[in-house]
Order: sequence, then structure tokens, then C-alpha cells
Amino acid sequence: MALRVALVGASGYTGIEALRLLSQHPAVQLTALCAGRMAGMPLDRVAPAFTGLDAPPLEPFDAKAVAEKADYAFLALPHGTAQDAAADLLAEGVRVIDLSADHRFADPARYAAIYGEHRRPESLAETVYGLAEHHRHRIRDSRLVGCPGCYPTAVTLAAAPAVRAGWTVGEVIADCKSGVSGAGRNPGAGTHYPETADGLHAYKSLAHRHAPEMSRNLGGVKVHFVPHLVPIIRGILATVYLRLGEAHDLAAVRALYSKAYADEPFVHLLPEGAHPDPRHVRGTNRCHIGLFVDGDLLVVQSVIDNLGKGAAGQAVQCLNLMAGLPETTGLEHSAVFP
Amino acid sequence: MALRVALVGASGYTGIEALRLLSQHPAVQLTALCAGRMAGMPLDRVAPAFTGLDAPPLEPFDAKAVAEKADYAFLALPHGTAQDAAADLLAEGVRVIDLSADHRFADPARYAAIYGEHRRPESLAETVYGLAEHHRHRIRDSRLVGCPGCYPTAVTLAAAPAVRAGWTVGEVIADCKSGVSGAGRNPGAGTHYPETADGLHAYKSLAHRHAPEMSRNLGGVKVHFVPHLVPIIRGILATVYLRLGEAHDLAAVRALYSKAYADEPFVHLLPEGAHPDPRHVRGTNRCHIGLFVDGDLLVVQSVIDNLGKGAAGQAVQCLNLMAGLPETTGLEHSAVFP
Amino acid sequence: MALRVALVGASGYTGIEALRLLSQHPAVQLTALCAGRMAGMPLDRVAPAFTGLDAPPLEPFDAKAVAEKADYAFLALPHGTAQDAAADLLAEGVRVIDLSADHRFADPARYAAIYGEHRRPESLAETVYGLAEHHRHRIRDSRLVGCPGCYPTAVTLAAAPAVRAGWTVGEVIADCKSGVSGAGRNPGAGTHYPETADGLHAYKSLAHRHAPEMSRNLGGVKVHFVPHLVPIIRGILATVYLRLGEAHDLAAVRALYSKAYADEPFVHLLPEGAHPDPRHVRGTNRCHIGLFVDGDLLVVQSVIDNLGKGAAGQAVQCLNLMAGLPETTGLEHSAVFP
Amino acid sequence: MALRVALVGASGYTGIEALRLLSQHPAVQLTALCAGRMAGMPLDRVAPAFTGLDAPPLEPFDAKAVAEKADYAFLALPHGTAQDAAADLLAEGVRVIDLSADHRFADPARYAAIYGEHRRPESLAETVYGLAEHHRHRIRDSRLVGCPGCYPTAVTLAAAPAVRAGWTVGEVIADCKSGVSGAGRNPGAGTHYPETADGLHAYKSLAHRHAPEMSRNLGGVKVHFVPHLVPIIRGILATVYLRLGEAHDLAAVRALYSKAYADEPFVHLLPEGAHPDPRHVRGTNRCHIGLFVDGDLLVVQSVIDNLGKGAAGQAVQCLNLMAGLPETTGLEHSAVFP
Repeated sequence: MALRVALVGASGYTGIEALRLLSQHPAVQLTALCAGRMAGMPLDRVAPAFTGLDAPPLEPFDAKAVAEKADYAFLALPHGTAQDAAADLLAEGVRVIDLSADHRFADPARYAAIYGEHRRPESLAETVYGLAEHHRHRIRDSRLVGCPGCYPTAVTLAAAPAVRAGWTVGEVIADCKSGVSGAGRNPGAGTHYPETADGLHAYKSLAHRHAPEMSRNLGGVKVHFVPHLVPIIRGILATVYLRLGEAHDLAAVRALYSKAYADEPFVHLLPEGAHPDPRHVRGTNRCHIGLFVDGDLLVVQSVIDNLGKGAAGQAVQCLNLMAGLPETTGLEHSAVFP
Repeated sequence: MALRVALVGASGYTGIEALRLLSQHPAVQLTALCAGRMAGMPLDRVAPAFTGLDAPPLEPFDAKAVAEKADYAFLALPHGTAQDAAADLLAEGVRVIDLSADHRFADPARYAAIYGEHRRPESLAETVYGLAEHHRHRIRDSRLVGCPGCYPTAVTLAAAPAVRAGWTVGEVIADCKSGVSGAGRNPGAGTHYPETADGLHAYKSLAHRHAPEMSRNLGGVKVHFVPHLVPIIRGILATVYLRLGEAHDLAAVRALYSKAYADEPFVHLLPEGAHPDPRHVRGTNRCHIGLFVDGDLLVVQSVIDNLGKGAAGQAVQCLNLMAGLPETTGLEHSAVFP
Repeated sequence: MALRVALVGASGYTGIEALRLLSQHPAVQLTALCAGRMAGMPLDRVAPAFTGLDAPPLEPFDAKAVAEKADYAFLALPHGTAQDAAADLLAEGVRVIDLSADHRFADPARYAAIYGEHRRPESLAETVYGLAEHHRHRIRDSRLVGCPGCYPTAVTLAAAPAVRAGWTVGEVIADCKSGVSGAGRNPGAGTHYPETADGLHAYKSLAHRHAPEMSRNLGGVKVHFVPHLVPIIRGILATVYLRLGEAHDLAAVRALYSKAYADEPFVHLLPEGAHPDPRHVRGTNRCHIGLFVDGDLLVVQSVIDNLGKGAAGQAVQCLNLMAGLPETTGLEHSAVFP
Repeated sequence: MALRVALVGASGYTGIEALRLLSQHPAVQLTALCAGRMAGMPLDRVAPAFTGLDAPPLEPFDAKAVAEKADYAFLALPHGTAQDAAADLLAEGVRVIDLSADHRFADPARYAAIYGEHRRPESLAETVYGLAEHHRHRIRDSRLVGCPGCYPTAVTLAAAPAVRAGWTVGEVIADCKSGVSGAGRNPGAGTHYPETADGLHAYKSLAHRHAPEMSRNLGGVKVHFVPHLVPIIRGILATVYLRLGEAHDLAAVRALYSKAYADEPFVHLLPEGAHPDPRHVRGTNRCHIGLFVDGDLLVVQSVIDNLGKGAAGQAVQCLNLMAGLPETTGLEHSAVFP
């Protein structure tokens, strides 16, 4: 019998990607679709790519109504908004997968320091961080998953094996390059085609709020984070600079990563010398990793789709875990190429 | 039991897309994979998007060897090369779906006039043109399908309902815009990024060899064809200009097209006023159509993915028909958006 | 002695391009710079490309103040707004070059039919249409020039030689492709990078308000106009379809165009077989033309920079004429390539 | 009287940009134009942007013939080829500005370690490194200038003020992002539009041969260099990570850079908080710099046009110095925007 799943927030990019994945998922029945401003709209106006798609109508969100139709809910809402929806759904017995930032920190003080006061801190007590590669077992039994940010996903998967093994010393530098969809669906001067195409630039250098999440994921090490906006639609390339504390050559580092990700269905260490490109994981839940060493400098490059493994794909991976399905269900497809 | 399918020519863009679709097809078992120069190469070197994909090794082509493993063969070879492979496979009892130009014309003289002498004209006697919307029934029983060219697919789907209904007079103008993947995988000055990005131009104006195929598909009407290269990766937008012989208003034309494509699973008439964009069908087998009328001028805009409905998607659609499967099997997915 | 020139409206794309050209013009002294919302802003915030540029401060517009400093004024304002500024400046004795649509039609009724009532119709009595190739002599002595729209410039230069020679019959089809800067500087869903890159589509098919201007320029022949938005920053490619009334072959048509543009400094007929690309005229005042004939169908392809020859470049060309300078002054530069 | 200048190697991107700049330079008379394979070709076939340009014919290179016509020669040849041309021209009394790598190192052993044996080491004794900001006075009197590589230009301008002031400790990390024109004009798989657009990746991580040149420019400090290919046509963004040895806050660092570049006509420190974008210096000889500090980490971001300040623009700057002209002659123009 199919899982009954609701999607709350279907009009932003994260929600649209979740809708695409859920509507193609062989074990899911999408039973409710909620949107704010776009409620009542035909789905092909939300995204013409959905022309002809068979899906429930876009309705305003109501926790009780959702609970009648669904056992699982994806929240693709802005942070600050998701916390109420999550708490209300939990109260109705719905298991929640939150794609916003609202449940990424269990500690209300930490959340508050970055995003402002959390209105429903009681939820934080039971939230599980949705990085399956680190918290697979806890996700299985959780009622509330807070899915990682896109940048923290890329940087954590890149740095964690070396950091956790204790092979690194000092601070981490994460020079990340993101596609423009990471800025969301609201148009602005910073995403206007004539000023965005054929150029690139950093933004919020050393001041982006994803840095504390990365640092927490890596056991507290300081992460200097410089995100760049590049003229691609989707995808993140994280170039992470780490210092090796003792002499470890490239072969040793490759062996370490190879072992760390040997059983991971979505994380692939590329052949020696190969450089990952986010194009090759676009539309998928995959992460490709490349490793380079010079002296005590380790450079790890990882790529994900910011809307895939960095958001909706990862959320489906969590759903699969929560529902006891094979973790790759509905996520096996390769990237379209070219 | 799964269909046993071979893919011959797995390293060009058409072959790579066929590989992607076949490897995700729920009723297909890919039993052989053939390539020329790339035989022996790991699949992730052919396309890093295939990292981790489970598929047979890339072998040199041998008709007998293929026949032992497969009941169906996709040919994603250059025209001129496919004709021998097709004839040899047919002789071994393999049903062939040719994505090249070699079997698009049943008449050897017509083929010769465009592409040069056909070496295996005996095959042409039984070839069926793989435009399912026009030849569905004959495709079902065929042993050899010649899949349409990408431009002719877009233009034919755009113009056929009006032309076949006898509503049009005079010649047709097809102003088409294609993504750069249409030029194939071999790099050249005309596809070099620094000279291709942020610009566009027509090429082979009034002299492209896809024009006679369009004309044949439309009952012999002259088609003036001006293809343009635009800086997108995949996709074709055909803007087709037709003269209506008698007074037909937009409503009448919409009714005509609506009826023509009512039962077609992959062709969608967009809502009135909507303009199709190839982005919204990228990676799919779909075609979106928009209609505009001013006086006796009918403008039909159609979009397809040149590698999807214009090549590999259409080929899978033919396979489904030949195998008695529902026509949409393995082709239900929506385009990635954004 | 340098010409004293004011630029009114310096923050949109047309104004920014005018500012760039005027600040590099060897015979111009830019004496006043006016802007609305952006008045008071440093120039490098209007456009970081102007970092370090020596220019007057951005002030609110006042006709009298401008008249004290300038003998010529460029108006780079939205249509509807420019008409008051123009009339007020004329009253102060300033010669006006209007880049908006407000003074492209001498007949108030025609203007009103497209853009709504004109509030200062007295100006229209003396306006001269700023297409130098057609109205060079009248521009020289005019006090008010209404610069052509970008699309009409491209289509008129493409079609006029054949139409004016009486070689064509019937209606004209203009299938145009424009870069996204043509949509202006205000961000919106239709110019949001993630939904604009890697796709293209027509818009306002057969209903764009530049069509009557094209028709007027071509002696009244009906022009069917379908504009397309393509993912390039700047540039227009017009593919114009014309019917030749009598037998004229390609050589005859090339001779006709060659003669028509022999003395034009900015219009170049490309070698036979060559296809123009807007990249090659980007940032310039140039127009490249390619010609193709099949039977009685003549296809003319022309390219311009929508902000160059289609707006600010053309305006500088008019200024040169009005001031008695060589027409190419300040406009000699080639496009940056690649 | 105009400077008589020859351009040797006019068909690659560096040569084309040099030709564009030299042909617009008010004090230069381009007296000879040499090319290899393209000798004899009309200039509009080398680059259609040059349609209508008045320039000497493309001839095969001959040092004596050049010496008869020119007092200065630009060499835009592949490294390894330029060294013979340079030595031969010097012997004929022509002053040489080499845009290749052949004269960037005065020490033959250092050159050999990176590029292989130098065949004309006698030239190296008198070569001056063409970074005007560091070697202005020596360039003025030199007969042979070796222009810096594009990456070293960006990284050196970014790092030098802090490093030279002795404010930094330890190694430097240079995470650079370059447009595709940096790969040259020869098409290849790595620059094929369908595989280059909408993606990005690092290449030659920690192994690119520009690293030793950066290191030499910075007094010998180790530079870890990871170049990335991004889907823009021209431009480099260097994100340089430096460790401050003592407590220096952002204000102090800004004061340091502000002073270092106060009199530099082409290097601009952006306002606090602003992030440079290569689009804003495209087609120019400019460099924009942004500064960010967190604790002891200094992040300097610099942008240049790889073909402008990174190649041909810098070469013209050197020519101006050598000829005793104002350093900005012919280089005053702003970037086209948008």
C-alpha cells in the first residue's frame, strides 16, 4: 500500500522539486498539495513542466485536513513559517520532514542566534538532523526530520571523513559555488538574467548563516565560508581546504574516503584525478567527490544538486528511511546529460 | 519478463540519452551495449553522470553477438553507418529501432537525393517511420523503425493537424531554434563555448536536409526551413507560419488541434495565450504546442527535447508499441524545473 | 569646443549605455546627469562598471537647470514620461533626442492607438524619426528626434531595400529573437535567471506594439511580428521572410542591398552564405545583414545590439548629425570578441 | 606621430583582443599583422566582429619585414614559439611585448622547470616582467617585456599589498574561477558548449603551472592554486585566502590596500562590503578588489578580464609606458553593461 504523503508549500523551487520526485515515487501516493498565494491555481501555471500531471489540487494549508489525508508531510516553506506547521502536524500525528531551516538545530538558543527566536521550541526536542549519511538510524524512528541546508550538505559530506578521523587540524575554508536557483524563486536585482548571466561573484563572504550549521556538523571546528553565485541554474560545487595534521598522502586519504562512503548509495568518490561537476548530479540525490593533496593541504571537492541532495532529494531519502523502504526508492535516476 | 534490448552506439548524445532512458525503463533489461572508439571504456568516462550505473560493458558491435542477447536493438549511430548494422541485425531476427536518418525514407531514390546512395535498400521496403502520432499501428508490427529527425518531429507535430485538415494553402515557413546538443558531441568552432554562448545565428538557411523529410510528412507541401542555433543545451522551438485558406478563427484552430491531440499522451496543447518553452519538456518525450492567429496567418509554436521526443524518447515510445507495452512506459517523468 | 550634453534617465539599461557612449565620445562634454529614484546615488552603485568614472552627479530632472548646462539632451525615460520632459526642454531651447517611444509617430492618433493619448501633441509636429539611414537630412536640422524602437530598427534595415525597390509582394513575417536586456532593468518572473537561462520562448505573438512602427517604416505593408526571448544578454536577430514579386535571384538581391548600404557606415552586408550573429555587433552601433533566396522566398537576417544601434548608439549617431560632426564620431569601436 | 606597432599572432583570442585595442588606440598605427595558418585570410573571417575594420593584411611572420614597418611588436603566440620571434625581433631593433609565458622568468632554470628548455636564454637577461603596478619604471626603459599570466595577474594584485607589508604568515590559497576563453580558441571536449554550459568544475587542482609565477611575484611564499572553469566567456575572479600574522582588522587592511592602489589608474578597491564581479571589468584593463576579514583570516577577491588586464590590456599598458605615453591611453573605456 502506498505511503500517503502531503506536500506543504508547492510553489517554490524546493517544493516544485519535491512534487516532481514524489509524483514519480513508486511507493508514494501524493494525497494533499498545499500552497499559499498559489492555492487554487492549476498546476501547469505553478510550473509548465507539470502540464498534464495528475496531482491533487493546490489548497490552503490546514493541519487537520492534511492529517486526514496523509501520514507524512513535506514542508517546503520559508524558515520561520515551517515551525508552526510542523508543530501542528505533529500534534495531529503526522510525521514531518521539514526542508526549511527551522528544525536543523535541536538547541533553541543556537537556532535563535542565527534565525531569531523559535516559536515552537518543544518540537526541537525531538528533531533529527536529516543527513542520512550521519543519522540514518535515528531518522528511521523519528517523527520530525530537519533537512540540512544545501551548502552544509555539500561541505559536510566533503569534510567529515577527514575531520571525524582526526586527520585534520585548524580551521576549515569552504569556498562554495552555487547555482542561482539557490536564491529562491522570488525575482530580484541579484537574479535578474541580464546582470547574472556571464558573470559571477561571492556574496555574504564570511557572514553566511549556513556556516554555524557546517561547524556543528563537523564537531565544532571553525568553518570560514565564502559562497559564490555562478551562472548555472542548479548545483553546488564545494571546494574545501583542510590541513592534515600528520603526513597522509593522497592514497591514504582516498582509502579513508573510499571506506567512509563504501556503503553509501548516493555518495561516490570519483577516480583519482577526476574533478566533480554539479552537472553530473543535476536532478539527482547524488554527491560526487574528488580529492587532491599537496603537502599537508587536502582539497576536497564535492558536488550536489542544491534542490536534490541539498533539499528535496535528501527529504525523499529521509522519507524512505522513516517508512522502512529501501533508501534509494524513487531516487535511482541518473542526471540528464548533456 | 523484461524485454531484452541492445544499444548500439552509446557514446554520442543520442546514445547516451537512450542509455539513460533504457536503464530506467521498468520493462527493459539492457543486455548489450556497443560502441566504436569507446569500447572497453568504463561508463563513467563516457558520461560522468553514469557514475555508479549498473550496465553491461561497452563492446565493439557484432550483429550475431547482439542477436544472442537481445530481441530489440537501438541504433544510435551516424547515418550511413546504421544501414549495415540494421540489415545485419534484421537478418539475425532482431527488431531494430534506428535513430539515424538511414531508414526515414522508404524510397531509396529519395534517401539518395539527400544522404547519398543507400547500401542496403532491401531494408527500406519494410521500414516504418517512427512518428507514433501518425503511424502507431504500423509501428506495432514492424521489424524496423526509422525514427524521425528532431526538426521534422517538431515541425510535423506543429503543422500536421492544420495541413491534414486541408485548412492551409501555399507554402510553409518553419523558423526553428535548436539547442547546441543538436550539433552532436564532436567539438568544433561552431560549438566552442566562448563563441557559442551569449549569441545566436541561423545556419544552412533554406538548405538544411531535414526540409524534405518535413515536406514528405506534410503530404508534399513545400517547407522553407531556417534553423537557428541558440545557446541552450537541449531543446527545439519550432515557430511555424501557415496560411489559412478560409476564414478560421483562433477558437476553430484550437478546437482542431485539441481534437487531433486529445488522445496523445505526449502532445499537449497549452492554454490560450501560453507560449511553449523547450525547458519545460527537457529530458522528456513531450511536445507542448501554442497557437496564434492574425487574419489568415496561423502561427504554431511547438517545443520538444531534440534528444527526447526528437530522438531517444521517441525511440522508446516505438519500442513500447512494438512490444505491446503501454505507450508511456518508462516515459512518464516530468522535466526538471527550474 | 565640446558639445554640452545632458542625459536624463541614467539608471535603466538604455540610459546606462548612453552614459557609457557619451562619456567616451571625444566631442561630448557630459554636463548633466538626471535620474529619478537613483538621484544622489554614486555612479558605481548604478552600475559597478562605472567605478572610477568621472561624471556629473545624479540629480533630479529639472528642465530649466538642464537648459543652463546643456544644448542637447538625451531622454532615456519610460514612454509616457518622456513627452513632458521633451516639451519642457524644447521650450527652453534644448535640442532633444528621445530614446523612448514618445516621438516615433508624428500623428497623435497613431501614437494614441498604440500607447494611449499623447499629452504634448504639439511636439509631434516637429519630431523626426531617428533612423539615420532613412532620414539623415531631416535629422541634421531637427530640434526633436524620436529614436526608433529596437525591433523596428532591425526589421526595417532588413526589409527596406527590397520593399522600397518594389520587389516584394504581400505581407512580411518578422521572426525576431531578442536578448533579455530588451525587457528592461526591472526584475520579474520572466527575467529571473533560473527560469530564463537554458530556455527560450516567443511572447506577445502577433500582438507586440512594435509591429505598427515596422509597418509604417515599410510604407504600410502588413508586418506579422513574433518576438522571442533568447538567453543572451544583449542583441537582436531578425529573421525576415519576404515574397519576391518577380524572379530575382540571390545575386540580384545582393546587388540591391549592396548598393542600398554602400555608403552606410554602420550597415554591413556579410559575404554570401554568411549568417549574422548579434555577438559580433554587441556594444556597437553596427548592423550585419545576411541574405538567402529560395524560389520567390527572400530571407533577410539582420543583427543589431538592442541597446546600441537599437537605442543609445543610434541616438549618438543622431547627435552627431544634429551637431554637424562626422556620423561615426565616438562609435567606431568593434565588438569585444569573444 | 603615431607609434608604429606590429601584431604577431592575430588569430587567437589574445591576439584578437590586442588587435581590437591597438586598432582603437589613438596613438598607435598598426603597421603589420602576422598570422600562421590564417595568413591571407580576410580579417572578418578571423573574427566577424572585425567586419569593415581597416587594418593591414594578415601576413606570415618575418622578423626583418616587421622591423621595416614597426618599432614595437606584440607577440600573441603560443609559449615556446614566441621565444624565437622575440629574439629575432630584438636583433632587428624592435622592442618586444610578449604576451606568452616565454619571458615571464628571467632565470632560464626556472622557466625550464615549468615550460621546458628555453631556446633563446640570452633574451631572458633583459626581460622585464610586465606587471606595471610592480615594475613600472623598469618597463619604461625595457626592450623586452614578458607580460604576466592571467591568473598570476589577478592573484598578485589581490595578495601583494598584504604580503609585501609583511602582514601575512604561512601559505596562500588561491581559489580562482576563470571564463572559458582562458582555454584558448582551439575547440575541445572541455570547451564544447553542451558540456560546458550550466556546469563548472576545477581542473589541474594544485598542479597548474601558473602557481610558481604567483609564488615568485609574492616573494616566494607557497601558493596553493585551484583554478575552476566557470560558464562565462571572459573574466577571472580570484578568491585569495591569507592568514594575518598579527591582529589587523578590516579597517586596517582597507587602509593598506587603499594606499597601495591610490595612484593606480586601473586598480580599484570597491566600497566596504561590495563583492567584485568580472562582468564589471569585461573588455577593460581594470581590476576591482574586495576585502573581507574574520579573525586572522583575510579574504581578498579580485577580478580582471583574462584577455584584458590579464593579457592584451596589460600589454597595451606596457606599450604606453615604453613609449612615454600616459599609461591609460587607449584603455579608458568602461565595461559594456549589462
